[in-house]
Amino acid sequence: MGQVLQFGSETQSPHSDATIERIMTLTEGGMAKVNAEILKRAGSNVDLIPELAKHLINSGGKRLRPMLTIASAQLCGYEAKAPDGNDHVMLAAAVEFMHTATLLHDDVVDESDMRRGKQAARMIWGNQASVLVGDYLLGQAFRMMVDVGSLGCLDVLSSASTVIAEGEVMQLGTAQRMSTTEDDYLAVIRSKTAALFAAATEVGAVLSDRSESERAALRSYGMNLGVAFQLIDDALDYSGKQAQLGKNVGDDFREGKVTLPVVLSYRRGTEDERQFWRRTLEDGDIRDGDLDQAIALLERYDAGADTTARARHYGSIALDALAIFPQSDHRQALEDVVAFCIERAS
Amino acid sequence: MGQVLQFGSETQSPHSDATIERIMTLTEGGMAKVNAEILKRAGSNVDLIPELAKHLINSGGKRLRPMLTIASAQLCGYEAKAPDGNDHVMLAAAVEFMHTATLLHDDVVDESDMRRGKQAARMIWGNQASVLVGDYLLGQAFRMMVDVGSLGCLDVLSSASTVIAEGEVMQLGTAQRMSTTEDDYLAVIRSKTAALFAAATEVGAVLSDRSESERAALRSYGMNLGVAFQLIDDALDYSGKQAQLGKNVGDDFREGKVTLPVVLSYRRGTEDERQFWRRTLEDGDIRDGDLDQAIALLERYDAGADTTARARHYGSIALDALAIFPQSDHRQALEDVVAFCIERAS
Repeated sequence: MGQVLQFGSETQSPHSDATIERIMTLTEGGMAKVNAEILKRAGSNVDLIPELAKHLINSGGKRLRPMLTIASAQLCGYEAKAPDGNDHVMLAAAVEFMHTATLLHDDVVDESDMRRGKQAARMIWGNQASVLVGDYLLGQAFRMMVDVGSLGCLDVLSSASTVIAEGEVMQLGTAQRMSTTEDDYLAVIRSKTAALFAAATEVGAVLSDRSESERAALRSYGMNLGVAFQLIDDALDYSGKQAQLGKNVGDDFREGKVTLPVVLSYRRGTEDERQFWRRTLEDGDIRDGDLDQAIALLERYDAGADTTARARHYGSIALDALAIFPQSDHRQALEDVVAFCIERAS
Repeated sequence: MGQVLQFGSETQSPHSDATIERIMTLTEGGMAKVNAEILKRAGSNVDLIPELAKHLINSGGKRLRPMLTIASAQLCGYEAKAPDGNDHVMLAAAVEFMHTATLLHDDVVDESDMRRGKQAARMIWGNQASVLVGDYLLGQAFRMMVDVGSLGCLDVLSSASTVIAEGEVMQLGTAQRMSTTEDDYLAVIRSKTAALFAAATEVGAVLSDRSESERAALRSYGMNLGVAFQLIDDALDYSGKQAQLGKNVGDDFREGKVTLPVVLSYRRGTEDERQFWRRTLEDGDIRDGDLDQAIALLERYDAGADTTARARHYGSIALDALAIFPQSDHRQALEDVVAFCIERAS
């Protein structure tokens, strides 16, 4: 695997989940119900569906997106207003199903072997099952939203589902294209990743009948948090931290994905170095040692550190968006998530 | 291609669209709006999406499902009640998008080369685009339903979308399995095909606030029509009529699909003949002349004609379901569709 990048100080190591402890504690009760709902809704008389769904459900994701829905609803006073209400739980589970469906289809589109340190579902059950179970989970997500019965929430989440698909299609166009600019890249990650974060937090306000200004604040928080999250993910793909998280280093490189660290290294590089990026990412001609060379070029041009700096910028926007809410444990918990997402890189 | 089956009298030839003229005339105005809505909603700033969507939209399907939604809404008096209403148009377009998304994903799952006599989208744009544009169209379908704002219709259509996916997953299990019974096969086609027909017609009643009994009648009509439709489709796959319709003969055979004509031939056949079906469909060992042999076995055991007889049975149920509605041009139009679906085989 060779040399790996470090993006920040190494004083805080090993990295722990400390910064999301607050949101985990505050949403613990809600998330227990979300997990029960997820298990229930992944059921089907067609055995393959719960089998494959459980592989994903037990694969140890943090459930960050549904946690954000529960926390946003709490921040907006949903639980105080409806002590027995379960709508935030249903929407949170729907958000997680939308995410899971996207992962299943992504793995097919990217021809990935691994997902969260485990074999990707398509490697066990085949592409066919991954496409179809993804469709099933998306259908179940919509059924949960219909059960909640809020047309406002349905509007936010169904719009997100088209924007996510648009982002994925856009990415097909930027992949293997070194002419991709930082703006092109941002348009892709806003759609394919950040739109679901934005919808996950916005529905917390919609459900609680909060003002347009609070709704916009939570949408902006989620959108910018999502951009920061994806930027760090893309930096991590070239970093030694990635291996610690149970993921392959260099997946994006092998798949020809032109992410921000690559955009920066390409633009700042010499003609010879640009030739290297075109050969590996555009032509897909990857040889022994090329990943090490890519990592060395990222390091030479501070591409990892600068990608993290960009993430901090979007993280700041997310924090300022929240500032219209009075200070509270719930607001603090959402602020902590921003720090958590960014500090994964250090 | 060799020998092909004939399932009925050849007096009525060449086959014309005569039997659906009535529904086409009655829904002409609505369908013009549906087509405009489809073109509008297939748009996106991401060029590949409208490009691929237009390939499908212009590929000459009859738009039977959205036509059924318009006609069912008319039968239930929607247009009289809401002369400027557009909700039936939106739902019809949503139904067609659900169908189109399913076709895109099916082609990937089945590794099909052709669709409606044209190259399948995945052969031109790749599996990746087919998966993702399918997701986009499904998202757009839900957005249209949300725009209509009827939770009842959302319930019917979102439930259908999970049932369709379940049916497709079920089919993965029955494909290449000669132990498939007629009941197993029926369960698959009820889910993967008939559920959307049932939803397409049921929403016509839901939208018009008709009684539970009328709603159930239209659901039953659509469900049984859908079963008959798929039975005939599966019989046609081994028939010379198929070539006239611009489709390949024997696609199901090459894909190892255990459809009713095969179930009947297998059960009625000798041990040697069963061995033939196991070799070709279970083991996928298909040699020159095997398709001709399969067609000969279907003919020997009247499997095509008996599949058509089964279709007539479900067609009769569909017609009786409609009988609670007073006789009218609209009811007659829906009745004609049953005859049309079944007579495709003759």
